[in-house]
Amino acid sequence: MTPTHEAPAYDPDNVFAKILRGEIPAARVYEDADTLAFMDVMPQGEGHTLVIPKAPARGLLDADPASLAAVARTVQRVAGAVKAAFSADGLTVFQYNEPAGGQTVFHLHVHILPRFEGVPLQRHGGGMADQAVLAEHAARIRAALAAG
Amino acid sequence: MTPTHEAPAYDPDNVFAKILRGEIPAARVYEDADTLAFMDVMPQGEGHTLVIPKAPARGLLDADPASLAAVARTVQRVAGAVKAAFSADGLTVFQYNEPAGGQTVFHLHVHILPRFEGVPLQRHGGGMADQAVLAEHAARIRAALAAG
Repeated sequence: MTPTHEAPAYDPDNVFAKILRGEIPAARVYEDADTLAFMDVMPQGEGHTLVIPKAPARGLLDADPASLAAVARTVQRVAGAVKAAFSADGLTVFQYNEPAGGQTVFHLHVHILPRFEGVPLQRHGGGMADQAVLAEHAARIRAALAAG
Repeated sequence: MTPTHEAPAYDPDNVFAKILRGEIPAARVYEDADTLAFMDVMPQGEGHTLVIPKAPARGLLDADPASLAAVARTVQRVAGAVKAAFSADGLTVFQYNEPAGGQTVFHLHVHILPRFEGVPLQRHGGGMADQAVLAEHAARIRAALAAG
């Protein structure tokens, strides 16, 4: 936006770029031409899902507006399925930019968390989830998308 | 999305609808045909800004996709200005749905918070901000938007 406070350049070796290239696995829930959704491997709660653009962007500010619009569409679609799949009472959506903003992987991503009355979020970084559990959750969300 | 877990209908007497109708004041930072941005009156930190669609929507799931795309565009634009206006190190973006998801005003809104190394967020509901301070912050963000 301005010459000051520029973020560092996009690093194509970030973990989400590797997921997009199929170099590392992910429990995928949705994919279209512009976006991918998959389960967070360090969930802050059951059903914690991420949506990313396929186009390289470090964060919100350097994303191509068309790519960001596609992310918004996918967030809405996947969030509805996450809520249905987990019979959630609500949804919390986070998007972090730069380390001070909470970002730890430097490819633009949106967190979708199903929420339940009286259940606080867990801390991010509480540990790696069981892959079989994530695969089952991803299947549940894909089924909700298909039921749409 | 599904017949179960439907949210209640949109309430046109919510406080953001009143702001849109000009019935109550707000420290406005940006407005276009589809969206409005203004300072949160109970900020979780200096520069806490909200973006809302003009079209009625209770939350993420019932928003018209075109309206949601407009919100995403405005969030990107205003977030860049917020970061510049406060010389922030990062940005945190929140979007809450239903009470279990953290929502307290039932008109779709996106929170934009400038973030600074080592400074945690304050609790929402920590109290009303001084109106003169909010007006000064809004002017600072408008200036950053104008500077592009």
